[in-house]
Amino acid sequence: MTDAQTADQKAAPGAPAKPAMRDSLVAAAFRLFLEHGYEQTTVDDIVKAAGVGRRSFFRYFPSKEDVVFPDHEKCLADMTAFLRDSADTDDPVVRVCDAARLVLRMYAENPTFSVQRYRLTRQVPGLRTYELSVVWRYERTLADYLRARFSARRDGTLRADVIAAAVVAAHNNALRAWLRADGQGDATAEVDHALAYVTEAWSSERPAAAGGEEEDDVVIVITRRSTPMWRVVRDIESGLNQG
Amino acid sequence: MTDAQTADQKAAPGAPAKPAMRDSLVAAAFRLFLEHGYEQTTVDDIVKAAGVGRRSFFRYFPSKEDVVFPDHEKCLADMTAFLRDSADTDDPVVRVCDAARLVLRMYAENPTFSVQRYRLTRQVPGLRTYELSVVWRYERTLADYLRARFSARRDGTLRADVIAAAVVAAHNNALRAWLRADGQGDATAEVDHALAYVTEAWSSERPAAAGGEEEDDVVIVITRRSTPMWRVVRDIESGLNQG
Repeated sequence: MTDAQTADQKAAPGAPAKPAMRDSLVAAAFRLFLEHGYEQTTVDDIVKAAGVGRRSFFRYFPSKEDVVFPDHEKCLADMTAFLRDSADTDDPVVRVCDAARLVLRMYAENPTFSVQRYRLTRQVPGLRTYELSVVWRYERTLADYLRARFSARRDGTLRADVIAAAVVAAHNNALRAWLRADGQGDATAEVDHALAYVTEAWSSERPAAAGGEEEDDVVIVITRRSTPMWRVVRDIESGLNQG
Repeated sequence: MTDAQTADQKAAPGAPAKPAMRDSLVAAAFRLFLEHGYEQTTVDDIVKAAGVGRRSFFRYFPSKEDVVFPDHEKCLADMTAFLRDSADTDDPVVRVCDAARLVLRMYAENPTFSVQRYRLTRQVPGLRTYELSVVWRYERTLADYLRARFSARRDGTLRADVIAAAVVAAHNNALRAWLRADGQGDATAEVDHALAYVTEAWSSERPAAAGGEEEDDVVIVITRRSTPMWRVVRDIESGLNQG
């Protein structure tokens, strides 16, 4: 969060009103993109519509593509700060899922804008490529955190990369379903459901274990290959109840 | 495979010697990229070094970036064909892992070239972006196959997207380790090991399932009190199937 604030302050030194200019550039750009198409709209058109100069545009956005994704830099900075503030006692997989939820929150804050952008990104290959590199940066941020947390484990980098990719894929599966449904429905519940699929597979702190339950002790079942499954299940259940 | 062959035939109608021209364009390009840098080398430099005309270059490669990744289109076509030829009895997760191994094979066929390209891609942001979109196309190819296989399952698209992302991440983790080690070591063994981590989590047919043990041996299941019963049963079943 601090990084993004610093960047904002650099962009508009001593001028707290400036973010309004940034917002009006984004609003003007989207109005023009929707009316005339993305490719047909130039930066000159945008600054004219927003009533500002070209240099103001480039103070906030390195390129026309960047105005389509105005909040990702801040969200990446928020995610980095969130992960940096983790405790060693946090379950690493739960933590990266929570970090991914910051991206959802950004989309869910402004459903109309998010849905418009989603449609635009489907239509313009250059924006799709831009989005892929943004997604990749989120994935690397999660993977770097997990690599540090798993550094003492065998296959630590492998685990980290696979789990980061799985978290991003689950998050995006739910996010895109919500965007395709025009931002209708409960995005948070959908993302929670999708992320639970990942924590189910890899978290040491399974979703079921949440909430002041007993110690998560180990159960050892010894059986024979020929034992019928119903009998194995019964034996485990009776073992579990002896807690 | 057929798609790529058709494309090749279109590129060089009735001229079987043409692929040699394609190869010499790639060789000339890489020689120049390594000597003078990627940005400093133009398509004109490449065609001059290869002793062919500009039009020959663009017959094979839509842009300078494409000459850096000359085999991905064929590999994508091979992957698509491989998945299309799957049987319903194939374990879908094992099948996508085998499909991913086609990419490894392409890299491992020419270690020197693969290592040079890896270094080049690290240095040139445009190539990194290009590579991201290639990786994304592989991931979508795997996910589309899994979506079809899981279409009757609850959360079928979620499972498909997460598993495809995990397979790609595991494959690339091992591939990049091998490339960073200058192509030394056994890439196939490293990729097998990485992919086993994914099948371990999601395949119904675990990698350990190979090999025939005796009939009625003892099965030891170690689990946690909080693990859901369905998961315990699944783990035992997979243990039992290790016969």
